[in-house]
Amino acid sequence: MAYESLCQHFIKISRFEHLAAICGWDQAAVMPTGGQQARSEAMAELTKLRHQLLNSSCLADWFAAADEQDLSLSDQANLREMRRVWVQATLLPERLVEAQSLAGSRCEHAWRTQRPANDWEGFRKNLTEVVTLSREEAQIRAEHNGVSRYDAMLNLYEPGTTTASLNNLFDDVKQWLPTLVESVTEKQATSPIIQLQGPFDIDQQTKLAHNLMELLGFDFDHGRLDTSAHPFCGGVPSDVRITTRYDINDFTSTLMGVIHETGHARYEQGLPSTWAGLPVGEARSMGIHESQSLFFEMQLSRHPAFVESLSPKVKHFFSRKEDSALSVDNLIKINNRVEPGYIRVDADEVTYPAHVILRYEIERDLINGSLEVDDLPEVWDQKMQHYLGLSTKGNFTNGCMQDIHWTDGSYGYFPSYTLGAMYAAQFMAAMKKTVNVDSAIRSGDLSPIFSWLSENIWSKGSLLTTDELVKQATGETLNAQFFQAHLRNRYL
Amino acid sequence: MAYESLCQHFIKISRFEHLAAICGWDQAAVMPTGGQQARSEAMAELTKLRHQLLNSSCLADWFAAADEQDLSLSDQANLREMRRVWVQATLLPERLVEAQSLAGSRCEHAWRTQRPANDWEGFRKNLTEVVTLSREEAQIRAEHNGVSRYDAMLNLYEPGTTTASLNNLFDDVKQWLPTLVESVTEKQATSPIIQLQGPFDIDQQTKLAHNLMELLGFDFDHGRLDTSAHPFCGGVPSDVRITTRYDINDFTSTLMGVIHETGHARYEQGLPSTWAGLPVGEARSMGIHESQSLFFEMQLSRHPAFVESLSPKVKHFFSRKEDSALSVDNLIKINNRVEPGYIRVDADEVTYPAHVILRYEIERDLINGSLEVDDLPEVWDQKMQHYLGLSTKGNFTNGCMQDIHWTDGSYGYFPSYTLGAMYAAQFMAAMKKTVNVDSAIRSGDLSPIFSWLSENIWSKGSLLTTDELVKQATGETLNAQFFQAHLRNRYL
Repeated sequence: MAYESLCQHFIKISRFEHLAAICGWDQAAVMPTGGQQARSEAMAELTKLRHQLLNSSCLADWFAAADEQDLSLSDQANLREMRRVWVQATLLPERLVEAQSLAGSRCEHAWRTQRPANDWEGFRKNLTEVVTLSREEAQIRAEHNGVSRYDAMLNLYEPGTTTASLNNLFDDVKQWLPTLVESVTEKQATSPIIQLQGPFDIDQQTKLAHNLMELLGFDFDHGRLDTSAHPFCGGVPSDVRITTRYDINDFTSTLMGVIHETGHARYEQGLPSTWAGLPVGEARSMGIHESQSLFFEMQLSRHPAFVESLSPKVKHFFSRKEDSALSVDNLIKINNRVEPGYIRVDADEVTYPAHVILRYEIERDLINGSLEVDDLPEVWDQKMQHYLGLSTKGNFTNGCMQDIHWTDGSYGYFPSYTLGAMYAAQFMAAMKKTVNVDSAIRSGDLSPIFSWLSENIWSKGSLLTTDELVKQATGETLNAQFFQAHLRNRYL
Repeated sequence: MAYESLCQHFIKISRFEHLAAICGWDQAAVMPTGGQQARSEAMAELTKLRHQLLNSSCLADWFAAADEQDLSLSDQANLREMRRVWVQATLLPERLVEAQSLAGSRCEHAWRTQRPANDWEGFRKNLTEVVTLSREEAQIRAEHNGVSRYDAMLNLYEPGTTTASLNNLFDDVKQWLPTLVESVTEKQATSPIIQLQGPFDIDQQTKLAHNLMELLGFDFDHGRLDTSAHPFCGGVPSDVRITTRYDINDFTSTLMGVIHETGHARYEQGLPSTWAGLPVGEARSMGIHESQSLFFEMQLSRHPAFVESLSPKVKHFFSRKEDSALSVDNLIKINNRVEPGYIRVDADEVTYPAHVILRYEIERDLINGSLEVDDLPEVWDQKMQHYLGLSTKGNFTNGCMQDIHWTDGSYGYFPSYTLGAMYAAQFMAAMKKTVNVDSAIRSGDLSPIFSWLSENIWSKGSLLTTDELVKQATGETLNAQFFQAHLRNRYL
């Protein structure tokens, strides 16, 4: 039967993706530097193989025949997702894929030295090439889907999301965010923080991280924590690899990073194993993935009751019973500090959306063609001044050259971060209708919280569309009011 | 051109083997247990892919056309090795390969519990199935090569080695070994050892291991040391992964294991990178590989001058300046202790060949058909009594069920261990003609030793046959007299 043949084919592909995921983790976490070249070649061979498998000539017939089959609801969803993967992978001519891969590698590789050197001129040329090819990609996808160029790119990461909906969403945020930032920073100015005094032993940071991961339900029989230069969540659902990095003078960044990645990891570990290897068994979207990491990081671990249990733990692990910087009050202040800054990845929960909206507006116009790469620094500076009151004139390093995303053509990804934060707030509000979140956190038994997430999010895989998933879980589709209410409640 | 197409095809295969090697290391060294099933399925998919690639219909034509091309000597050698891999992989019908894979997995899996339970009856049935299929495999290979069944299996691991040559070699060893063992144990009986008193801190053992690996020239830019249940050398030449295990009460087994694997690793790291990914660039044979690990373990690190530098190092790392068990004399005694025992992997340098010859004679007769699995325990017991004076009657756990090799059909592998020991002794004797080994070791600069190995062994890859390699390096083909002389010199 065609549908069954498709499933077998996609399971085969997922097995090769398994190997790519593990070797990718290895590359980032343990591979010695001298292994780089041969590894890149081996990984490229796997990419080529995946491309070939998705371009197998039998697939078109199978998809056509499967459409005629009488399928269960989950099989229908799986067929929809298989088709999405297939169309995404086969729409572009090989020439374009290769040119993008080359241009992306070149741009990213050079960026690693150009960024610290503040070398906009060098970067500009490479980026222009990447943008030109991404526009070409977007054009092909747009024609196929009958949508705008940027909408076609959004669909890669957030199926169903449109420029129109994001404009609405973000225009609203732009109304209230600047004044909120102002009020919060004013309020916090009168409430000084006791600075952390390092060193905080790295071994103890690791032990504390493991302790928190256990509290948060990470399944160590199906995953690990390791170290890498840039923290990430990788591996496969049966073997999830999260990483962190350590700062001997600031354990909080490690902990928050580990908690964030643990949220990603629990989503992966909680995906339905009956659909393992099939697209319907995968995570719904980048935004929903981010909603889980941000639920853990922002909703759960910054909850006052959570910090109340964290404070004595931290004092114990670092043998600092008397350190007033580690008091509940002070840890809450450290976690919740709001300060407009240049760098997105260092941004707090309140100013973060400004960084995302700025990037969204720029990449949308870049891809649609109303903005050129040459104008990027000026637009960036204007928007930074407007949204966060900071100028990046001449400061490319901490301005439009700070992120890796645009170097390799990942246009359409940035909105996921703020969508994730909004979904997380909405999930928490919905959860509170049936779960006593406060008392669960205070009791140290978080299982009612995880049961809600598992039942409403993790176990669904990609069975539903994002809108259906959010509506079934919370009673409505995305509503940014929950996010705004959450910020006001926490910070004002 | 056909030859160039073949090279590209084999380089592609090597890239998938790269991924298999890294994921195999991961499985043994870091994977959580819950990752097992999905990983096995992913690895099996890779095995299937390799089989398909080696069975591509274009290969036969390419080989035929390449034979007509005017090739350099190294290209000719590469063509020879590519053909060897191809013939090995394509000779067997798929039905047999699958049956072997299933029977081998079943036998090995059950063996893991049957061995500790001394369950010969249970093991016997599974093993009979494996042997039956291995005989079938050997028969097909034998017919193709025009040799005996067992010779055909030997060729998989030691191309060029024959039953006739091994009979000669081992009959000679059987003449002098039993009396040598007797003389040595008598002599050592009058020279008591001071037993090591643990604990020896594991972190310090790891640091000491790294220190010795550096002394032995391990390139940490192209490799790592990690921990696994069974030590091995894996990975790829640009990224060699060796592993060890730790015993808190006995650091010597860790060190000797690490030194052994470092020998394997340096061979891999020293293979000619210009032929990376091509069969001519791979290690010559299992016996030559073992010669390098045993050169490091037996010839180099048990050299008295080496132990002289090791003793103060050990005392320093474990902060035991006054521990008389760590004196040069006592460490030499510990290293060189000879005692007939049941277990091959625990055997000393002198009794080890007896374990190998016993297995060689049994597997040779098993594969050729003059011995049946049912008779295995009795023959094992007889030979153990004859060669080492120990009875294994009724003791299957420490008798014929102790090794993993026969469970998955690796018949023909065991001789490599003793061939390796013999080659190592012969290489050392040849090296001494041009290198002052004693003074190199004493100076702490071992580079003259490594240069000899690199020039004569590592850099050759599979350019030469084993006989040619050994003859060019030492002036003659394998001559067991060097091994005998080495043992007499060290132990009498």
